[in-house]
Amino acid sequence: MAVTQVFSQGKRIRDYGIEIGVLKTGAYNAITDVEGVLVGHTTLIMGDSIRTGVTAILPHSDNIFQLKVPAAIYIGNGFGKLAGYSQVKELGNIETPVVLTNTLSVPTASDALIGYTLDQQGNTTVRSVNSVVGETNDGYLNDIRGRHVKHEHVIAAIKNAKNGPVEEGNVGAGTGTVCFGFKGGIGTSSRIAPESFGSYTVGVLVQTNFGGVLEINGVPVAKELGNIPRQFNYDVDGSCMMVVVTDAPLSSRNLERLAKRAIMGLAKTGGIASNGSGDYVIAMSTAKSNLIPHSSDSLLRETKILRNDGLSPLFLATIEATEEAILNSLFTAETMLGRDGHKISSIPIDTVLSLMKKYNKLKD
Amino acid sequence: MAVTQVFSQGKRIRDYGIEIGVLKTGAYNAITDVEGVLVGHTTLIMGDSIRTGVTAILPHSDNIFQLKVPAAIYIGNGFGKLAGYSQVKELGNIETPVVLTNTLSVPTASDALIGYTLDQQGNTTVRSVNSVVGETNDGYLNDIRGRHVKHEHVIAAIKNAKNGPVEEGNVGAGTGTVCFGFKGGIGTSSRIAPESFGSYTVGVLVQTNFGGVLEINGVPVAKELGNIPRQFNYDVDGSCMMVVVTDAPLSSRNLERLAKRAIMGLAKTGGIASNGSGDYVIAMSTAKSNLIPHSSDSLLRETKILRNDGLSPLFLATIEATEEAILNSLFTAETMLGRDGHKISSIPIDTVLSLMKKYNKLKD
Amino acid sequence: MAVTQVFSQGKRIRDYGIEIGVLKTGAYNAITDVEGVLVGHTTLIMGDSIRTGVTAILPHSDNIFQLKVPAAIYIGNGFGKLAGYSQVKELGNIETPVVLTNTLSVPTASDALIGYTLDQQGNTTVRSVNSVVGETNDGYLNDIRGRHVKHEHVIAAIKNAKNGPVEEGNVGAGTGTVCFGFKGGIGTSSRIAPESFGSYTVGVLVQTNFGGVLEINGVPVAKELGNIPRQFNYDVDGSCMMVVVTDAPLSSRNLERLAKRAIMGLAKTGGIASNGSGDYVIAMSTAKSNLIPHSSDSLLRETKILRNDGLSPLFLATIEATEEAILNSLFTAETMLGRDGHKISSIPIDTVLSLMKKYNKLKD
Amino acid sequence: MAVTQVFSQGKRIRDYGIEIGVLKTGAYNAITDVEGVLVGHTTLIMGDSIRTGVTAILPHSDNIFQLKVPAAIYIGNGFGKLAGYSQVKELGNIETPVVLTNTLSVPTASDALIGYTLDQQGNTTVRSVNSVVGETNDGYLNDIRGRHVKHEHVIAAIKNAKNGPVEEGNVGAGTGTVCFGFKGGIGTSSRIAPESFGSYTVGVLVQTNFGGVLEINGVPVAKELGNIPRQFNYDVDGSCMMVVVTDAPLSSRNLERLAKRAIMGLAKTGGIASNGSGDYVIAMSTAKSNLIPHSSDSLLRETKILRNDGLSPLFLATIEATEEAILNSLFTAETMLGRDGHKISSIPIDTVLSLMKKYNKLKD
Repeated sequence: MAVTQVFSQGKRIRDYGIEIGVLKTGAYNAITDVEGVLVGHTTLIMGDSIRTGVTAILPHSDNIFQLKVPAAIYIGNGFGKLAGYSQVKELGNIETPVVLTNTLSVPTASDALIGYTLDQQGNTTVRSVNSVVGETNDGYLNDIRGRHVKHEHVIAAIKNAKNGPVEEGNVGAGTGTVCFGFKGGIGTSSRIAPESFGSYTVGVLVQTNFGGVLEINGVPVAKELGNIPRQFNYDVDGSCMMVVVTDAPLSSRNLERLAKRAIMGLAKTGGIASNGSGDYVIAMSTAKSNLIPHSSDSLLRETKILRNDGLSPLFLATIEATEEAILNSLFTAETMLGRDGHKISSIPIDTVLSLMKKYNKLKD
Repeated sequence: MAVTQVFSQGKRIRDYGIEIGVLKTGAYNAITDVEGVLVGHTTLIMGDSIRTGVTAILPHSDNIFQLKVPAAIYIGNGFGKLAGYSQVKELGNIETPVVLTNTLSVPTASDALIGYTLDQQGNTTVRSVNSVVGETNDGYLNDIRGRHVKHEHVIAAIKNAKNGPVEEGNVGAGTGTVCFGFKGGIGTSSRIAPESFGSYTVGVLVQTNFGGVLEINGVPVAKELGNIPRQFNYDVDGSCMMVVVTDAPLSSRNLERLAKRAIMGLAKTGGIASNGSGDYVIAMSTAKSNLIPHSSDSLLRETKILRNDGLSPLFLATIEATEEAILNSLFTAETMLGRDGHKISSIPIDTVLSLMKKYNKLKD
Repeated sequence: MAVTQVFSQGKRIRDYGIEIGVLKTGAYNAITDVEGVLVGHTTLIMGDSIRTGVTAILPHSDNIFQLKVPAAIYIGNGFGKLAGYSQVKELGNIETPVVLTNTLSVPTASDALIGYTLDQQGNTTVRSVNSVVGETNDGYLNDIRGRHVKHEHVIAAIKNAKNGPVEEGNVGAGTGTVCFGFKGGIGTSSRIAPESFGSYTVGVLVQTNFGGVLEINGVPVAKELGNIPRQFNYDVDGSCMMVVVTDAPLSSRNLERLAKRAIMGLAKTGGIASNGSGDYVIAMSTAKSNLIPHSSDSLLRETKILRNDGLSPLFLATIEATEEAILNSLFTAETMLGRDGHKISSIPIDTVLSLMKKYNKLKD
Repeated sequence: MAVTQVFSQGKRIRDYGIEIGVLKTGAYNAITDVEGVLVGHTTLIMGDSIRTGVTAILPHSDNIFQLKVPAAIYIGNGFGKLAGYSQVKELGNIETPVVLTNTLSVPTASDALIGYTLDQQGNTTVRSVNSVVGETNDGYLNDIRGRHVKHEHVIAAIKNAKNGPVEEGNVGAGTGTVCFGFKGGIGTSSRIAPESFGSYTVGVLVQTNFGGVLEINGVPVAKELGNIPRQFNYDVDGSCMMVVVTDAPLSSRNLERLAKRAIMGLAKTGGIASNGSGDYVIAMSTAKSNLIPHSSDSLLRETKILRNDGLSPLFLATIEATEEAILNSLFTAETMLGRDGHKISSIPIDTVLSLMKKYNKLKD
């Protein structure tokens, strides 16, 4: 049976006085600051070796198959098993919740997502569903070969999905992940574009499981801790799934451009998108004017879209929110013991804070 | 339980005196003309409404995960659910058998393929597998929402795989497909490049489930039969999966170029890659000099690759073999009754032959 | 000085009773059937060895920089020197006339196009121009190394541009080209989508300079004439530039999909997109609702775009019009003598017509 | 006549005790640390308003057309006019020097590069040349509409090219560029991969003309200086050309992956790849085992290529060298007065150094 971990999240990076970037955050500093977005988790911590889970992101609470959202997926480095890429690329939309899980459970999650969609009211004649499922490999802490994620876990994450604050750290698809050698997990953040550019919100949620040479707000943490990859293999590999949602009315072409900027945020944490990384960015726009009915009496759709020259502030927003979301995942995740006695420690917050002080990066 | 249909294939297009193209075919005029390639089917025909199956293509009979093949996937039109695209694109190789099935069974097939790989001798520490699964939508004849393909059907198709002649028509993943309004299915063909270009073999296998304005070797069959799409919707949609294998030593970059030519072969049958089509081409090279060990003591690989200027004959070979493979699927498939009394007739061979005569396209 | 050849075009393929496809053509059966589209040529035939020129296609007659058109470019095979690709891909629009010329004159044409744009009324502060210039290599008949195209030839082609019937054959950028071993050149055609799909027009213009195994409306002309490539090098190489314009209100994403279908039309003539080919398709939409002002007081654009499921008839239209445009270039081009005494004969129309009869493909 | 500026370069970032990253640099900390690579500049500073130039990068000193180098181009943001993209993508190689200049002079540089190649010994029958020319827009300081770069300037940059230290700052194609609101220009840096990964060298050269929120080695310089973009338009737009060369034996597929990492280095300086940016990365491998003869008696090429799993250290090397190259361009460029009295100040080094101290980022 699945155990849903009680939510007792550590403090987030901003709670410690560390501020990333120059733009304002949304109310929750979370992907759910984009109106209508819902996030749900199923966390699987069972026995000695099951440390995995599922995270679901819903762009809105209606039937997503019947009311699709403009979308794009950008592949930073494609050593990964994401499901659903080609149809999103071709048609420019997403028609299911976005689900994250572990590498070897993508088929299970995908199948569950198909089942969920077929069973939804109004979908009784549907015979084709493009499920979007991302993953990272939690096989160090989790018995990934056992493929312990089941259909009901996926459905539960979707059903649990809610707005408001988002659980971070060792929850959902982040339960067993490792980031820069420390415990990674789920993180989220958001940014608001300047008023003169429409005050749009960009929200980001990440599942962090990658490596590189960690920097926190420009402080060379990895260097200071002697935590520099020497073999550039297991110690830098892994992956990062990034989900970007905005209420800005973007075409799928511009959503792909937005998605590309999330990798730039990842870069600022010291990530290198190593050979063995699966670094994917899924971007969606929730603007009501541009939602796409599955069927329609008209051949035409009237849309209101942002001009290309309105994009730059949203690019900066994506970069900042991605950087902060990654750091939030590190700060909120706790030490985890898992498969074969493997142990991954949380980032040593006190040490990090003293480094922040050393480099004058703590706001008083 | 799965029922493997007895193999009683109709005649192939060439048996009727219809010759496609100018290059010579291989011995079997099949994908298995590329040395070492194996093909297996599981055909599911059960009760009134199960009309589906699985087809597996193995580039060689060793452990494919441990000895990967250079590969590429080209997306002609991406309204489809193929699994495995991004990693093939990034790393330039394939590490599992290629499996074809129906749209909603991709996750099951993918999961089975992961299980198959994890269980193979020598793979006990493997924690990441990029399964490659293609599909078309057989939902008109098949109860696709029932997702009747199970793990054992996938494993059986892999285990059944053999060299030599390939079953075509209503078998495996082609059991329930529809092509140009007629019964489609599995088809295959091959071509040999001229001796001055290395006598390489190109083999193609297709799963045909698409529409358009059918032409057979240049004869306007659809026009003559009044079989022209008027609504351009269900009557042209569908998909075509194409698998291209060659023993020519091609880099992944040149395999992608080769893959693109398969769409040109599809075009010659009158296919239009309609909005609702998932037209994917998976290309692999089996040249022994370029197989890729999963792990190696050396950072370097010595390869022998074909120069760019050796590609053109292989392009023609791919175009011709794809065209003929599609036509073989039509000629060998038989009338099928399926879900909700739906019936799809085989192409009326006598009528087609009389049209061939009318247009002087029958070799005496 | 440039000599503008007197227009004395041969008959077009349809004039001989050869009908391609199933859709209706526009009034001129030309790219100019799309309202507002203009085409102009400068033909350079001078002395023994200058056989080249310029063709300009304007999507509308206003200042294109100030009123950009949604656009996309698809690369069938990228052995070519087209200018302007990346910005069209990124921004989804074209801001200059589209110019075609020979391979080594792309920079000259591009520079002229920049000058033309800088000099246009209303553009006095413009400091960045993305000129779109395509090319094929006419170096067999033309002294291409001499780079005889000059700025004034490019400007003249733009200034000459007009609506109505389009000159074809040995004109403009098609003056010195070779197609399937015969004299190629400029060709054009158009199709109208069915009324239930909006009666949109798709127009195509091609510059043909490629090879393969020629088929005309399904008749194996190359096979019959023994004109089959043996060396797959100079005898198949070359390139084909295709320009597709439609009044259907397509997003840049769907214009790219449309563009991909032009290669399928090329395939039906027997083209193989050989290694040495530069096969590019430039697609533009002229729908007034979606034209893009260079600058605007609003961050938003209101657009009316065709739904994905309205695309399929336009795909067929593009395939048919491209096939016919290529054949028109062959039928209208005349035998040409050029550089170093090289001679390329026009396609032997009588022989072709007798082959058409042999294969029952002539409409009485 | 062109004036070649006397070389009196300011100090580089490392000279001030600022160290970027964790990997070792090459001997010159320049792109020329990759054996055989040559760099040449032509600097045009004339009168009040000509502030532009040309920079040429040669991967080796032989005839590049006859001995091509494996190559790839990655487009971070495609608002730019780079020439040569599609053929590099298709064929995986570069056959001319790489030339950088200003936006509106790409055609001139491209034409000059064609002329240079046609005129080279051994190229007398060449009729097709894929010139690779990148650009940024120096139109704020330079009379870019005047298109003052001439053929001889391009040829001079190529002829001037030499190994050893590389001039940086206001030279060549960087003469008139602006970066983060300060004077940008040419910068370069290099890194050596760890010995266990082959000790390969990665060299980077950049032409910096972009904006964002400047950070220097993690210090929030823009924030401190109040230099934050408010309008996200002219103040963030611009472009960055990045050229990456390595002696690691990489396939074109892996060169594209390498190229992608340069954008991650740019991100670490605070660049955002704004809407109006043309951010391109050109990557080449000089490994002798993999150079590509233009013509060959054999259809096959024997190559020795790095395995995918040898890439990660080179990714880190690219990120670090790109970041440092950008910062070198800022530190070495001097205040420039140009067109219409426009003045761009050099970065205030003293202030920056005091900020470095404030954030404890100066090595004593």
